[in-house]
Amino acid sequence: VIKRIAPEAEVIDITHGISPQHVLQGALVLANTLPYMPVGIHVAVVDPGVGGDRKPLALRGADGRCYVGPDNGLLLIAADRLGGVEEAVEIADERYMLTPVSRTFHGRDVFSPAAAHLAAGVELNELGPRLEPDKLTRLEVPAAQVGSSRIRATALYVDRFGNIQLNLTSDELERVGIVPGTKVEVEVRFERYFAIAARTFADVRPGDIVLYEDAYRNIALAINQGNAAHMFSARVGQEVKLSLAE
Amino acid sequence: VIKRIAPEAEVIDITHGISPQHVLQGALVLANTLPYMPVGIHVAVVDPGVGGDRKPLALRGADGRCYVGPDNGLLLIAADRLGGVEEAVEIADERYMLTPVSRTFHGRDVFSPAAAHLAAGVELNELGPRLEPDKLTRLEVPAAQVGSSRIRATALYVDRFGNIQLNLTSDELERVGIVPGTKVEVEVRFERYFAIAARTFADVRPGDIVLYEDAYRNIALAINQGNAAHMFSARVGQEVKLSLAE
Amino acid sequence: VIKRIAPEAEVIDITHGISPQHVLQGALVLANTLPYMPVGIHVAVVDPGVGGDRKPLALRGADGRCYVGPDNGLLLIAADRLGGVEEAVEIADERYMLTPVSRTFHGRDVFSPAAAHLAAGVELNELGPRLEPDKLTRLEVPAAQVGSSRIRATALYVDRFGNIQLNLTSDELERVGIVPGTKVEVEVRFERYFAIAARTFADVRPGDIVLYEDAYRNIALAINQGNAAHMFSARVGQEVKLSLAE
Repeated sequence: VIKRIAPEAEVIDITHGISPQHVLQGALVLANTLPYMPVGIHVAVVDPGVGGDRKPLALRGADGRCYVGPDNGLLLIAADRLGGVEEAVEIADERYMLTPVSRTFHGRDVFSPAAAHLAAGVELNELGPRLEPDKLTRLEVPAAQVGSSRIRATALYVDRFGNIQLNLTSDELERVGIVPGTKVEVEVRFERYFAIAARTFADVRPGDIVLYEDAYRNIALAINQGNAAHMFSARVGQEVKLSLAE
Repeated sequence: VIKRIAPEAEVIDITHGISPQHVLQGALVLANTLPYMPVGIHVAVVDPGVGGDRKPLALRGADGRCYVGPDNGLLLIAADRLGGVEEAVEIADERYMLTPVSRTFHGRDVFSPAAAHLAAGVELNELGPRLEPDKLTRLEVPAAQVGSSRIRATALYVDRFGNIQLNLTSDELERVGIVPGTKVEVEVRFERYFAIAARTFADVRPGDIVLYEDAYRNIALAINQGNAAHMFSARVGQEVKLSLAE
Repeated sequence: VIKRIAPEAEVIDITHGISPQHVLQGALVLANTLPYMPVGIHVAVVDPGVGGDRKPLALRGADGRCYVGPDNGLLLIAADRLGGVEEAVEIADERYMLTPVSRTFHGRDVFSPAAAHLAAGVELNELGPRLEPDKLTRLEVPAAQVGSSRIRATALYVDRFGNIQLNLTSDELERVGIVPGTKVEVEVRFERYFAIAARTFADVRPGDIVLYEDAYRNIALAINQGNAAHMFSARVGQEVKLSLAE
């Protein structure tokens, strides 16, 4: 669809692997990935509300990136982290859509065409009426509860290795005394396990449960050369409790 | 393989997600997708008869598209819908293959090279002898049986969301009185469920079973924010009975 | 990451489907695939030792290809088969990395940047100190044991069709009398099955277990229109015994 409208545009796929309907997972992957991508027109579609009254959005960020996708929070974690939204419009002008617009596939009929027209030189404000950046839908990333000796965290997403990213930073871990080398008690679904805090997989043995700072500076739970999500039967949203092991 | 023969060619992947050996699923995805793709040389390979006597084909359609793939029906639903086949040849000239040709991977050794040579300017009829377009293998898409109050349909394919596309149009649904908003009794594998006919997912609640016209104008069966194929244990070819609920 | 450093580079994905941590599988897929790829800078990352003391490598092969990846054997089967390594360096100069380098994602922070700089014209020896090609880590591909009437082979990898590639050639099969058309007894996990040696799937019936020479000249075990890996519960490393059936 993009190539028919903007044959010169270069299309780079980030992923087609977001779990169906997981808007938060999509938003976090987008926010983690974009700092490593060239400035461009970024289309993201995780869109359980397609065909309803959520608006289709096109945004321009402070660093010159444009974002296209549904107004369900998917774009905003990335855009806010990368300097904020400078201009926002609702995609409303049918000249920039594939018509008739289907009720269930706006990725094809609304978002990709709008992105292609932007890539081909159409101005953002030609796509439709302005929206107030502050009034766009934003997702709440659940905060970890950090007590004096225990942490209650949440799984934000699970990657293809089965590593479980938590809503937690190394600073928060340190507050309960967990640093690389310490033993940690992990509770998932009423089961307890022992993990080791480590800088990298090479510091532990195969099969060890490991708590480490991942490449996006989030704390993640993994099994060295294994699949933690399978072992813990953990999904996005799963509660994970951590404390210093005695 | 294509890039070594035709370095200037731009390669666009449609999908590598067709279920192994599902020629009909591949043919339908190709027919659904091509209207949204630039005119080009379209290679498709779902090829359970590789190494046998099914011929390797190259076709030119009425709209200028070329098609390359096995003569098992894979290309013809698309080519016939997009104006029909103007010229067909059997790929036979070894100069346009990677030799020695393996017996099990003609995607690499026959189809991709032929497509690359076409992209690089070779004429269709240089690839091999002409074939009669009417004599190419064509697949029969199973027709739904629409009675006075019941429909017996077949699952044509299942997408990555678990939505089940049926061989059914909204016109056929209307003939038994099913329109957006009506309640429908669905029978799959001797189990009965209640679904709601709807225009889009946003019209129903999470977890609802929904019957809707998908973005290719086929009727599909889905679970809003769930996976219908898992719930119904349904695969391609599965019979699905529908009737107006009382 | 590559496109930000070398915007003119053309990126071709071979696969993202290597099983997590399967260095040997990755090495074999790379060796099988590269002969069909244009000469270029080839990045491969299967890296269970990331963050430890395995070195990051960049190599130049005799045919002009460059290879970038971890020093765990991943690159060497391909490089050795394609003429050998002419020059090897450890990637050590931080100017060619994304800094700070994460401890768990060198694909992003070390290997892709190095490859991009090579594509943009940086000389191999600018990346870091030279290494002795003979001292690089090499994987041992397990050899099949071929007796007078029996063969003990190992599954090297399983493709998406469930076909099981063995460490075996047609010459070795012939030594125990197995040629296309003969019946073969296959033992996997203490269960016995009857297979037929064949040139291609079209020579056998749907559902038949078939032993054939695949498109990379390895012997593979498959089920015609089925999934052998599922049926045999076989994984990479699985022992498979073969003998002529009586």
